[in-house]
Amino acid sequence: VVQKTGASKLNVGLIGLGRLGRVYARDLATRIPCARLAAVADLSQPALDAVTREFDVPLSSVDPERIINDRSVDAVVIVTPTDTHGAVTKAAAAAGKAIFCEKPLSISMEDALEMKRTVESSGAFFQLGFMRRFDRGYVAAKARLSDGAIGDAVVFKSSSRDPYPPTPEYANPKTSGGLIIDMGIHDFDLARWFMGEVDTVQAVGGVLAYPQLGAVGDIDNAIITLKFKSGRLGVVDLTRNGIYGYDIMTDLLGTSGTLRVGYLRETPLMVMTKGNVAHDTVPFFMERFGEAYTAQLENFAQNVLQGRKPPITVDDGVEVLKIAIAATRARETGQTVGV
Amino acid sequence: VVQKTGASKLNVGLIGLGRLGRVYARDLATRIPCARLAAVADLSQPALDAVTREFDVPLSSVDPERIINDRSVDAVVIVTPTDTHGAVTKAAAAAGKAIFCEKPLSISMEDALEMKRTVESSGAFFQLGFMRRFDRGYVAAKARLSDGAIGDAVVFKSSSRDPYPPTPEYANPKTSGGLIIDMGIHDFDLARWFMGEVDTVQAVGGVLAYPQLGAVGDIDNAIITLKFKSGRLGVVDLTRNGIYGYDIMTDLLGTSGTLRVGYLRETPLMVMTKGNVAHDTVPFFMERFGEAYTAQLENFAQNVLQGRKPPITVDDGVEVLKIAIAATRARETGQTVGV
Amino acid sequence: VVQKTGASKLNVGLIGLGRLGRVYARDLATRIPCARLAAVADLSQPALDAVTREFDVPLSSVDPERIINDRSVDAVVIVTPTDTHGAVTKAAAAAGKAIFCEKPLSISMEDALEMKRTVESSGAFFQLGFMRRFDRGYVAAKARLSDGAIGDAVVFKSSSRDPYPPTPEYANPKTSGGLIIDMGIHDFDLARWFMGEVDTVQAVGGVLAYPQLGAVGDIDNAIITLKFKSGRLGVVDLTRNGIYGYDIMTDLLGTSGTLRVGYLRETPLMVMTKGNVAHDTVPFFMERFGEAYTAQLENFAQNVLQGRKPPITVDDGVEVLKIAIAATRARETGQTVGV
Amino acid sequence: VVQKTGASKLNVGLIGLGRLGRVYARDLATRIPCARLAAVADLSQPALDAVTREFDVPLSSVDPERIINDRSVDAVVIVTPTDTHGAVTKAAAAAGKAIFCEKPLSISMEDALEMKRTVESSGAFFQLGFMRRFDRGYVAAKARLSDGAIGDAVVFKSSSRDPYPPTPEYANPKTSGGLIIDMGIHDFDLARWFMGEVDTVQAVGGVLAYPQLGAVGDIDNAIITLKFKSGRLGVVDLTRNGIYGYDIMTDLLGTSGTLRVGYLRETPLMVMTKGNVAHDTVPFFMERFGEAYTAQLENFAQNVLQGRKPPITVDDGVEVLKIAIAATRARETGQTVGV
Repeated sequence: VVQKTGASKLNVGLIGLGRLGRVYARDLATRIPCARLAAVADLSQPALDAVTREFDVPLSSVDPERIINDRSVDAVVIVTPTDTHGAVTKAAAAAGKAIFCEKPLSISMEDALEMKRTVESSGAFFQLGFMRRFDRGYVAAKARLSDGAIGDAVVFKSSSRDPYPPTPEYANPKTSGGLIIDMGIHDFDLARWFMGEVDTVQAVGGVLAYPQLGAVGDIDNAIITLKFKSGRLGVVDLTRNGIYGYDIMTDLLGTSGTLRVGYLRETPLMVMTKGNVAHDTVPFFMERFGEAYTAQLENFAQNVLQGRKPPITVDDGVEVLKIAIAATRARETGQTVGV
Repeated sequence: VVQKTGASKLNVGLIGLGRLGRVYARDLATRIPCARLAAVADLSQPALDAVTREFDVPLSSVDPERIINDRSVDAVVIVTPTDTHGAVTKAAAAAGKAIFCEKPLSISMEDALEMKRTVESSGAFFQLGFMRRFDRGYVAAKARLSDGAIGDAVVFKSSSRDPYPPTPEYANPKTSGGLIIDMGIHDFDLARWFMGEVDTVQAVGGVLAYPQLGAVGDIDNAIITLKFKSGRLGVVDLTRNGIYGYDIMTDLLGTSGTLRVGYLRETPLMVMTKGNVAHDTVPFFMERFGEAYTAQLENFAQNVLQGRKPPITVDDGVEVLKIAIAATRARETGQTVGV
Repeated sequence: VVQKTGASKLNVGLIGLGRLGRVYARDLATRIPCARLAAVADLSQPALDAVTREFDVPLSSVDPERIINDRSVDAVVIVTPTDTHGAVTKAAAAAGKAIFCEKPLSISMEDALEMKRTVESSGAFFQLGFMRRFDRGYVAAKARLSDGAIGDAVVFKSSSRDPYPPTPEYANPKTSGGLIIDMGIHDFDLARWFMGEVDTVQAVGGVLAYPQLGAVGDIDNAIITLKFKSGRLGVVDLTRNGIYGYDIMTDLLGTSGTLRVGYLRETPLMVMTKGNVAHDTVPFFMERFGEAYTAQLENFAQNVLQGRKPPITVDDGVEVLKIAIAATRARETGQTVGV
Repeated sequence: VVQKTGASKLNVGLIGLGRLGRVYARDLATRIPCARLAAVADLSQPALDAVTREFDVPLSSVDPERIINDRSVDAVVIVTPTDTHGAVTKAAAAAGKAIFCEKPLSISMEDALEMKRTVESSGAFFQLGFMRRFDRGYVAAKARLSDGAIGDAVVFKSSSRDPYPPTPEYANPKTSGGLIIDMGIHDFDLARWFMGEVDTVQAVGGVLAYPQLGAVGDIDNAIITLKFKSGRLGVVDLTRNGIYGYDIMTDLLGTSGTLRVGYLRETPLMVMTKGNVAHDTVPFFMERFGEAYTAQLENFAQNVLQGRKPPITVDDGVEVLKIAIAATRARETGQTVGV
């Protein structure tokens, strides 16, 4: 396992140059002082060329193995399609590289457990990505909760709204896991982070706005209730028809107060016309969580360099997937399902 | 049945002078031009004396029958304990008086159905109280929904938070019906009003903040999911530990937008000190819905005077009670329960 | 001077049944338990008839003197055109009646001083109306300021925006005094209430939106700066083209914080559509200050009944008029003008 | 004059590595793809070393002339103390370099006019910094104004509040120009940008919160009214005792609506406790305008590379200084002062 200290930078090999991968490339190359973008891999040669040119990346390859095994690379950041997370993690662990892997770990419990075994047997440093935990709002909420600002948090309530639907191809549950796994996993991760382990779940859902999502077997709205092992309660609602904007809102109800994380306005402008006060909304997740993505990647680099433990582990990935899979089954069966 | 037109006022007998009853006395005597407070009944002679003196009420009695049967009384407003709604309604219907009855109709389905039979067989004018339907925010939401402002409403989401718990005596499920009936019935009524009939419910709940409520068999938090007959979805969350204030918030997610009803600030003052911007909150339900109560009672009086049908009927009371009872059972069993 | 104690009600003669007068009639008849609407006077017989019928007023007359001098009347409320305030006050003082007079005292300094002499020589109870001092927001701000919540208030900043212009007839400076007197007097009164006496003023203004107001010699926008005798600063901006709604906003900047009074949304509804979050606005002054008007009148009645001094005196009316007249002159001359 | 096109990057020499200079170093090195940080100059060798090491800057010197005259440098960014702007600009213009100069141009009108002559005679590309014009809120307001969203803007109202006072050394009017120049120049620039040229000004001010600022001849609060050549009106209020946070708020009142730019909350968290809803505030100008600074510098680089004219010119610097100086004199004399 890589273990560095002090001044030197972490040489990162970035695997996957899709939308988020390109943001990570920029962050690693320019916004994270303790990291260096040492190598990039992607199946697309044009994508490689563009990133290599823009950020003067020393090494690039269409073959992830090539950069995973290069001696110049200390750590890998995995932003590939979810179904490849396992294989890339395995190769990186074998090569003794520190690993950052984008969420979700997997949409299959077997794969997830296989990744867990890989990480544990190899002793690799493995950090899972859940950027909301690095958002200033959620970080502040965690701090205030720890400070006792609201007493004991007893109800968790989280809402995720996308401004428009994904393509049917993306939404196909065979690759996305379906709405509850794809969108809900962020809220379930927050649920665990703030409240502890979930015991049982119930769920309802349906195709209410976008028949094309139903056509590929997905739903576009779901509401999931959670019962934590402590007896506390939670509820998560997910929608693809947020329409007005990207709206992520979480309430923690405590015994002496409530914390609320989220906001609606993007641009600091109000337009006031006859009988009307209006403002715009948050367009989508990069506007909402762009800073959090950068902070998360910097946290990863610092953790590796300073020999700290990862704040989000492969175990977290397994446990949150259990909730999401249980909730998916609960939605299909109408039953209370144990996690 | 009373059927008046035009200029004359409706002579109202008010039965029950508890907290809400005294507000109704003031409203009938001074704020509803088309009504006159003709009579009051209550078991407490001091309460009768105080109201009679303040508003110059011509008739008062500790016996409701006395004013129900008085010729000077055109209509009765029933604000007695829930378990007496049936008997008072029966007497008033027999006397041919128009009836306004505070929610809930009953906490027992048999009683509720008995009231339904009473009303139907007598042909009495019977209007049930659900003041939120007369709140400016909810009224505006209904209008905007009808205008097509958000397309088709597909998800209903409503939250009711009390700032502090009721006494254990009040909360006792034998008389209150328990949290889900007592608090939730308002949200279930909104659900039906905005979205149509509910098919099945699921629920979770628990005693998380106030053990004294658990001691009498009640819970202090619950989350209920609704599946409407149309396939649409809903969720209601209820808490006795709102703490910060009385917070009633409802979202209607549509296919082209969202409506949100509710607010947090009572006094138009912001206090801004080092690193902090703060305002107060809505103390409790009279501050939030005081105007709506008055508007509702005026609507009742106008409906009777002008021969209009009641907007909220005994059937509404029966149907919403079905949801609340089903949700209570769902919470107890962990099962999906049909309404 | 009337001086009552305890249980009995104050019998009020209301003089003037214009828009605000009719609101006062309703308040005195139904919303102020310690007052009785004993008499009404207005030049319009139909207005008298309507109010007398609606509220069963025992006495009415087209001649104010008739009710001022009636023994059944303890106190008079004057809501007549400003230029008649002096004469009515004189008659009421001569008759030994307690007096509530709507703002402004006068638009002429000689009249105002004459009223002051009348009140002082007669010893009459005289309370001037400035309803903002009875608004919950301003009352709370005053309390928090006294509590030391923001340290010493050193800058006063107040903005008054009307949603649409008055008629040119109303706006004519010969009767209204012009924008700075007509609108600004409320802000100047707040300035004195919160900050103390004003030493000098400067002002700019112009006809920027409504040429018809310029045609009668008025302006539609003005900005006035204040220097208090203590050296503290203030600024008041006035506009007739608020357009979006009635918006009254005041900031008190202190040495350890800031208080802000005001709000924009009338109905508790947000409408969220593609990229847009919107709400309505406060229509006009009755929606904003309706409660304050009632509270003020009740305060008057209580003060008379309990022998308390008036919180807003004829002196206040004189002093605030001095500021408004000085500001008007400052606007015309471009000079700093002493108050 | 430098005139580049297309793909190549602009090689920038950064002069001045104070607080803002170091931010610019980071921006030029990592956040502005079309720029390269080619050289840095500062009197402090440690500051030079730190920046050179962090961003691999090829050239550095304690002597600005050294980098101004280096062939590797296409353009200079001047973030030195205001009283050196003139000399550095002169040298850069003589060397044929494109120039970005931080606001204010100068605090002395002679110096400012001398800079204007330098720029004009040399034909140098010269862009002045006023970052608010690159803030998303102000940019959106400008766009909406142009779209006609509020009709004709007739009143400009802008407020700048610092959360804490500068050091007396910084505030000394001999170097800062005093509050009205130092803080107000941003608001005056917005005034010109949105509304056009100012004709006359009035001002009041004082030492109300921080005697130590008075001790060096400065004031801590001021209110300035503007009369534009078009007859439109404006008001700017400035305070050093914002206390609660950094609060920059601008209203444009139009003939059919109002635009408001600004916001109060930094972290997307609300903390709701008994009777209280609270959030944090914007700490200071880098949190508020950090993105705008980057956008402005990128705009400069793009303008030079693409041969576009500067959006903010030396003339703008001269004109806005005239307003600030006139306002300072107006404050001292109590007179209306022509610009």
